[in-house]
Amino acid sequence: MGDPVGARQFVSVGELPLEYGGTLPGVTIAYETWGRLNAAGDNAVLICHALTGDAHVVGPAGPGQPTPGWWDGLIPAYLNPEDWYVVAANVLGGCQGTTGPSSEAPDGRAWGSRFPAITIRDQVAAEAALADQLGIDRWAAVIGGSMGGMRALEWPLLYPSRVATAVVLASTGYATAEQIAWCAPQLAAIESDPHWHGGDYYATGEAPVAGLGIARRIAHVTYRSEYELATRFGRNPQGDGRFAVESYLDHHATKLAGRFDAGSYVVLTGAMNSHDITRDRASPLSNLHAKLVVAAVDSDRLYPARLSTELAEAADVPLHLVKSPYGHDGFLLELDQVGHLIAEALIR
Amino acid sequence: MGDPVGARQFVSVGELPLEYGGTLPGVTIAYETWGRLNAAGDNAVLICHALTGDAHVVGPAGPGQPTPGWWDGLIPAYLNPEDWYVVAANVLGGCQGTTGPSSEAPDGRAWGSRFPAITIRDQVAAEAALADQLGIDRWAAVIGGSMGGMRALEWPLLYPSRVATAVVLASTGYATAEQIAWCAPQLAAIESDPHWHGGDYYATGEAPVAGLGIARRIAHVTYRSEYELATRFGRNPQGDGRFAVESYLDHHATKLAGRFDAGSYVVLTGAMNSHDITRDRASPLSNLHAKLVVAAVDSDRLYPARLSTELAEAADVPLHLVKSPYGHDGFLLELDQVGHLIAEALIR
Repeated sequence: MGDPVGARQFVSVGELPLEYGGTLPGVTIAYETWGRLNAAGDNAVLICHALTGDAHVVGPAGPGQPTPGWWDGLIPAYLNPEDWYVVAANVLGGCQGTTGPSSEAPDGRAWGSRFPAITIRDQVAAEAALADQLGIDRWAAVIGGSMGGMRALEWPLLYPSRVATAVVLASTGYATAEQIAWCAPQLAAIESDPHWHGGDYYATGEAPVAGLGIARRIAHVTYRSEYELATRFGRNPQGDGRFAVESYLDHHATKLAGRFDAGSYVVLTGAMNSHDITRDRASPLSNLHAKLVVAAVDSDRLYPARLSTELAEAADVPLHLVKSPYGHDGFLLELDQVGHLIAEALIR
Repeated sequence: MGDPVGARQFVSVGELPLEYGGTLPGVTIAYETWGRLNAAGDNAVLICHALTGDAHVVGPAGPGQPTPGWWDGLIPAYLNPEDWYVVAANVLGGCQGTTGPSSEAPDGRAWGSRFPAITIRDQVAAEAALADQLGIDRWAAVIGGSMGGMRALEWPLLYPSRVATAVVLASTGYATAEQIAWCAPQLAAIESDPHWHGGDYYATGEAPVAGLGIARRIAHVTYRSEYELATRFGRNPQGDGRFAVESYLDHHATKLAGRFDAGSYVVLTGAMNSHDITRDRASPLSNLHAKLVVAAVDSDRLYPARLSTELAEAADVPLHLVKSPYGHDGFLLELDQVGHLIAEALIR
């Protein structure tokens, strides 16, 4: 009996060749599914989670599953498991069952600092290996927001014959200077935490939770909007004399540090920074076989709408705008708008 | 012979009562001046520096002065010392000669964690004590941007008879939720640095430079614009394989950590967070005796223009817009526009 694993299943996909060279051996992928693959094999939908998400798209928290679904309500309201076989996998490099830096390397110790630098394309290759194992030749749709949108975008570029529709929400064709800039103090905070030990802290019994908490505070502000913070918190004090907005960020810092691995955070941040669909490709979107659906959140400052506009223009498709006061997190919070977009993208 | 002190002069102003109660004993203020006070005593101008600035508004770096002037060129082009007696003081709580946490307390040890929480109003009271010593009854103008703008705004509210004109650039009537939110990970980074020692690191021979560097990286991004980072750095790599924008932030982190005290950074951040001209005052700007000049930088996201608009509307004065691609730092970088505003504000 191991630790409880929630509703996750696990599959071994063996050795994975990596974009930067070399291979990652013994890769396991954790995933959840809803519904059944139909006889024609044409009803499979892949949902790609963002940086700190996981395979648990919908459903309650419970043993082995620290968080409720991050798109709770999407299934069945907008993706009915009577019609669709929905798959969501924990991302390569993550910490919810898929191989990442906290996983055991072949020598029985955690990978830690030995975990290789990976790219979004490597993450998609891992998802393709999962699709092979599940007998899915072609996805009816690959859907994701933020880092998940990066994968949803790379999917039809890496595997043109395996994706009918890609839905890319609040994302980009490449990590921008500002996105990389915001990651810099986050990485520095984790890596200068004395419990980090160069990434090899797994056997110490301590983790760089302070550094990860600082990273989360930075990231969380970038995920929201100035307007929301002003109207929701303003200068309101807490009972303890601190500002309510400080307490709010403390809460998010503590919550993430309690459920997420700092090593995964660093590896996945590196993968996001590597993201650039034009790497080794000329005009990648000009002859896309898949149908591309692109949506931006109007108040998103981390993935500003111009980045989605660039994608839509390069692929010659319309740009959809999700209206939200919440900023980047609007792609998670505006479930009705996003759900309708997804349902519409799936109409055959 | 002590350390070199650049062009600074020093004055003792004794004990300073503090807004939150208690007093700070033995306060010294470091300042620089340009020009002479005229016989009428009506040509004195006070320039208030921002968070990591100092009294050295113009002029080269040199022994005892790690940085060149932060508004280099403002004097004499827009403030001629033939006409004006320009004074700039290092702020209370700072680290360039004015009493702050790194200064000696009466017991001969650094204040460190014993340095009291101070407000923008305390900083202005210290500047008023300096004005007393310099024989300045009334400033022709008090000018500042960002945290300096907070002081320029508090000056005529605390001392209505002592300010003819207040010039408030890229600033606000109160620290917003977002400004406080951005400070939270900065403070956490400094305070969780193992060299911080609860603020009492001065005798250890080490300083929380890693934490201060993380704070600076965060702050620096908030000071610039997404547009500038995108067009200036994009995804350009450095020779070492890192991104140019990462290297740029490293550079600013190292530079600040080498010249600025982390204890001052924490104390001054607290003072900025305290800023609220409506504390214990109703409609403070509705009957202002001083002439108020308000300017925002159009691309400023840390002190968005709406905050200056609120000030201008409350005081029933026009809003000036500095046009700049650089964001908040535009108030430092757009010297011609800012200089013209200042020169115009001083026309009698």
